[in-house]
Amino acid sequence: MREVFHQSLEDVQDRLVEIAELVTTAIEKATLAFGTSDVALAEEVIEADIIIDERALALDEQAIEILARQQPVARDLRIVVSALRISASLERMGDIAEHIAQLTRMRFPERAIPKGLKSTFTRMGQLDVEVSRRLTELLRTQDLALAEQIRNDDDKIDELHISVFEKVLSDSWQGETAATVDATLASRYHERFADHAVSISKKVTYLATGDWSAEPDDTFVAGASTGV
Amino acid sequence: MREVFHQSLEDVQDRLVEIAELVTTAIEKATLAFGTSDVALAEEVIEADIIIDERALALDEQAIEILARQQPVARDLRIVVSALRISASLERMGDIAEHIAQLTRMRFPERAIPKGLKSTFTRMGQLDVEVSRRLTELLRTQDLALAEQIRNDDDKIDELHISVFEKVLSDSWQGETAATVDATLASRYHERFADHAVSISKKVTYLATGDWSAEPDDTFVAGASTGV
Repeated sequence: MREVFHQSLEDVQDRLVEIAELVTTAIEKATLAFGTSDVALAEEVIEADIIIDERALALDEQAIEILARQQPVARDLRIVVSALRISASLERMGDIAEHIAQLTRMRFPERAIPKGLKSTFTRMGQLDVEVSRRLTELLRTQDLALAEQIRNDDDKIDELHISVFEKVLSDSWQGETAATVDATLASRYHERFADHAVSISKKVTYLATGDWSAEPDDTFVAGASTGV
Repeated sequence: MREVFHQSLEDVQDRLVEIAELVTTAIEKATLAFGTSDVALAEEVIEADIIIDERALALDEQAIEILARQQPVARDLRIVVSALRISASLERMGDIAEHIAQLTRMRFPERAIPKGLKSTFTRMGQLDVEVSRRLTELLRTQDLALAEQIRNDDDKIDELHISVFEKVLSDSWQGETAATVDATLASRYHERFADHAVSISKKVTYLATGDWSAEPDDTFVAGASTGV
């Protein structure tokens, strides 16, 4: 029974890694499409999101079946419950990659990245991709050094998010209203993507160390003008 | 044992209702503060969010304890797992109410609601409050007519969300960049709040009917200009 349970847990872990890989592909393509106004690539991301949703749903069903049949307790139980939560966060990360792709498609043939923010969004995109790759590796290896790196990347993304608002609210900003809307939404999506990764990292850290900290609120960093 | 289990489930349900009540208070105060630039009221919402977070965490711990001690199966198991998911969504709704309060505080003493959008945001706020009250009642009574009403409210909120983008992207929009940023973020927050309520309603409906539909993606309605 114990053997069976551990085999089931490994299956769950493999599935989480597989979903994280799909999310990584989605954010790689979405940020590339966003940067290059590649509408065909954006379409790929939008169409592929259903696969992430389906895989997350299948994983949830498997986790519920493990709870029903094998009735784990203590740490084993927390692993299964955490898998359910991690799958929900991965599914949201896929949605956010899709939103970035949708912004790209919506503005096509215009560029979705407003003038003057190209380098900022390129960097945010690279960091989101890095976060997603590290998260996949963290789920595969439980190497907690990766959790620390994800938190550091997230801090950098938060700084860039603030800098977007500083830019659009500065006197030098000459973007049209549509550019302001795009910058606001795109920056929020990039920032939330990494927030979810941090949230997952905390769960993995908790499972490895037993050190539970409450879920982080997502940072409110719209208020560059007030230094928030 | 069965008796004990049903008492535990009732406790869980009571706690969900209690958290939904706190969320309702938060969105009532947040939308009022947003509409009247009442920074003291906004502060109340921001300070009270920790209580929602704590209650959600306590409920999760209780649910995990039920899984460990009473090892429910079949429908009972799904009720407990759903409670975990509903608590996560309620916690997010509390965060979003907090974000609306934070927007209010950030702009104070200026109004956070951009000129020309007062009636739209008033209506969105009323609908979010209505959704939250109906959700609380749905969790209390499992009256599925409320789930239907929540979906209808959500449709209206989506339409208002689209109308915000139509307004700011129209030639008549004379808002400064800060007003465009505020309108974009505030509209997104109001819309996401109701999305979470719909997501919870679907879980309650599923538990009552066994009819599971996959989680909805949040609607991508930024693109009023393209009719998305």
